[in-house]
Amino acid sequence: MVNLIRKYGRILRAPENFLQPELIAEMQRGQLDETRRGFLRKSFLAAGASLAAGTALARSAAAIGADGDPNILALPEHSRTLGKPVAANPYGVPSAHETNLLRRESPGLTRVSAASVAFTPLQGLFGIITPSGLHFERHHQGWHDIDPGKHRLMINGMVKRQKVYTMDDLMRMPSVSRMHFIECGANTAMEWGNVAVPSVQYSHGMLSCSEFTGVPLSVLLEDCGFDKHNARVVLAEGADGSSMTRTIPIDRALDDVLVAWGMNGEMLRPENGYPLRLVVPGVQGVSWVKWLRRIEVGDKPYASKDEAIHYMDAMPDGSYRQYTSIQECKSVITSPSAGQALLDTGFYNITGLAWSGRGKIKRVDVSVDGGKNWRTARLETPVLSKCLTRFNIDWEWSGNPAVLQSRAIDDTGYVQPKINELRAVRGTRSIYHNNAIQSWQVAQTGEVSNVQVY
Amino acid sequence: MVNLIRKYGRILRAPENFLQPELIAEMQRGQLDETRRGFLRKSFLAAGASLAAGTALARSAAAIGADGDPNILALPEHSRTLGKPVAANPYGVPSAHETNLLRRESPGLTRVSAASVAFTPLQGLFGIITPSGLHFERHHQGWHDIDPGKHRLMINGMVKRQKVYTMDDLMRMPSVSRMHFIECGANTAMEWGNVAVPSVQYSHGMLSCSEFTGVPLSVLLEDCGFDKHNARVVLAEGADGSSMTRTIPIDRALDDVLVAWGMNGEMLRPENGYPLRLVVPGVQGVSWVKWLRRIEVGDKPYASKDEAIHYMDAMPDGSYRQYTSIQECKSVITSPSAGQALLDTGFYNITGLAWSGRGKIKRVDVSVDGGKNWRTARLETPVLSKCLTRFNIDWEWSGNPAVLQSRAIDDTGYVQPKINELRAVRGTRSIYHNNAIQSWQVAQTGEVSNVQVY
Repeated sequence: MVNLIRKYGRILRAPENFLQPELIAEMQRGQLDETRRGFLRKSFLAAGASLAAGTALARSAAAIGADGDPNILALPEHSRTLGKPVAANPYGVPSAHETNLLRRESPGLTRVSAASVAFTPLQGLFGIITPSGLHFERHHQGWHDIDPGKHRLMINGMVKRQKVYTMDDLMRMPSVSRMHFIECGANTAMEWGNVAVPSVQYSHGMLSCSEFTGVPLSVLLEDCGFDKHNARVVLAEGADGSSMTRTIPIDRALDDVLVAWGMNGEMLRPENGYPLRLVVPGVQGVSWVKWLRRIEVGDKPYASKDEAIHYMDAMPDGSYRQYTSIQECKSVITSPSAGQALLDTGFYNITGLAWSGRGKIKRVDVSVDGGKNWRTARLETPVLSKCLTRFNIDWEWSGNPAVLQSRAIDDTGYVQPKINELRAVRGTRSIYHNNAIQSWQVAQTGEVSNVQVY
Repeated sequence: MVNLIRKYGRILRAPENFLQPELIAEMQRGQLDETRRGFLRKSFLAAGASLAAGTALARSAAAIGADGDPNILALPEHSRTLGKPVAANPYGVPSAHETNLLRRESPGLTRVSAASVAFTPLQGLFGIITPSGLHFERHHQGWHDIDPGKHRLMINGMVKRQKVYTMDDLMRMPSVSRMHFIECGANTAMEWGNVAVPSVQYSHGMLSCSEFTGVPLSVLLEDCGFDKHNARVVLAEGADGSSMTRTIPIDRALDDVLVAWGMNGEMLRPENGYPLRLVVPGVQGVSWVKWLRRIEVGDKPYASKDEAIHYMDAMPDGSYRQYTSIQECKSVITSPSAGQALLDTGFYNITGLAWSGRGKIKRVDVSVDGGKNWRTARLETPVLSKCLTRFNIDWEWSGNPAVLQSRAIDDTGYVQPKINELRAVRGTRSIYHNNAIQSWQVAQTGEVSNVQVY
């Protein structure tokens, strides 16, 4: 187990493969208990000793002791040598020790990987900003790296002046920057049934949050002289081969929708729509059309294939709810979460994310006993509208089994429902818009798993 | 010029080499005027025509016309083919069209590149979050990728319990996430004299902003039982070979200082101190000790080499101000900025950054006539304490020469000074803490350059 801890860096973070056979085997052999007793003590002693060789440290380190390893008197190489120069990586990359933290496809979820999902590894992330390299991916026909010099945005339909904009045209316009979450409407889809997927990466990882920069769609619609009396919707169309089109009500289009080129300070990544995507705050990801090439102003919903066949809520009476696009208030504990293991009793920082497509998060409550008792978590600032909010709360683990849950409340007063409350209205046939409370079970061994608690 | 526009993607952004000889030559040959007349019209027609082939577009595109190019009737390849699969890059990278936007070393600034600077390309960034791959670098002995499993933090000195923490120990503690700017005390150093460096990347690029996650230093000091009656300072020490140590007053250490492992949602990058660095909000970058391995509690400033030889303000009377660490209120227009070129008259979005080590930005004013007249810019939200604030303001360029300036005011009421006001107090011998108003001159040709306006 000590080797595994070294290999994976930290106690809590999920190993490369959460079903890593050697991890399970070690646990089953009961080495966990040995680790609990021995690891902290050993590492404490070794650390004190290796630090002792630094002259600046000698005075105080002497009080800490050494364990007799002949090598520990040498300073580590990085304290004795000249390191790498600046701009060794003109565009930097993560540490070689962090190669486990990747977006991952769920094998077999779809027939081809060009029309699939790669999930964000929420279990290893901090704060609210998702690193752009780990932003989730959902493509319908694969992704391309489009030449921005050749890309165009057309605005047509019920407008006085049909226009085609170059990227240069758009990037000269008044721009705004805003932080928003994006969540696929099918996030947490498997939890409608009793299929408990084995980690938060796969249960909730179609969720990311970035600072987006672009021109308000309202500015472009004004520029084209849209028909204020008759326009009811806009249709957004992507430039990839999937014929992706989505209808957006005109009042929303004029409110906070952006035609965005910037994400987390730089240009969008190709997988996220470079050079241009729609940002539709609070609305499911499919409407945030990537590689945006056209906006058509119309007077009725278009009922496109992605609105009439997919992305509809199957209801228990056999009907389908269409055009349900707002991502309702939701939260999830990202650590400890399924696939991780607590290697010791004592203090843990329970941390997670909360969000609402209706506005700001007002409060997050956390339970460690499956919903019997709740305590209010600390919210990290800033708390922004239609943006992820990070919460943290202290927890002392006694070593007994526990069920961890979080429950978010937004500033409309809406309370995140339990899974059975949601099923009572929505049934179990749906794929989309599951915002139920998530339960993680901590076993006596420290293993954390995905369970459904009613 | 059209080729150059294609090559660099957008009109405003600085080309790879801002002194690109062919760009200057083309400008001098007067091709700018031809471009102004012809480019937008040409690209408009070509775009309308190429879009016309898409069936979904045929109806409206027919009204836009075509220019006879036989290739334009084909849909672009990315609209006809299957793209790349999800997780093709499990850790994503920028578009191949964005390879110009890199952090860059200023050749000759220091004797060796391991003790140098790589600047953030502010001219091409949006919003307030700096992509971690473009975070500026300033090393004193190069950088290393330290194994977090072996890294330790010791706390010693005036404490009841000297302790050595593993990364696992630290990451189990109560953590907070906060967005803060970091600026090197020597940022904009060359502007003390009349050496106008040729782009905002080199004049202001030792500036970045991230969401940091870590444990408050106050929690660790409490954990070790620091001497509340006699402690006056802490000393922070890095694990690289430069023997970097910095003194921090105890009241600041107990206020908002973090021992951080997270940056923009993931672990720190190696160049930025992985796995552990100090975050000292509002204070110059040198105190944000990277690869943090030790905190010593003491009762007087340590006057370490980086406090007694370097990082002191040379005053006009020959004396030196020591321990000046707060980064005072400052701002800069990032676009248009030196090294860029305006290729057309008309509307531009002037955009830039403002920040204060004392608190929040209250207001940013912008002048386009060298400080004679000022207008108040729009501030993007969120406006956070000791964090970058993005500002934007509309500007119609007539084609006449202009001098662009921004002036920030923070919530203490402090107003960013002019360079001659700063020099009247500080002289011209200093390297550090130049927070003067920056001037960019727009020539009639559209070329933007760095000038000093008094």
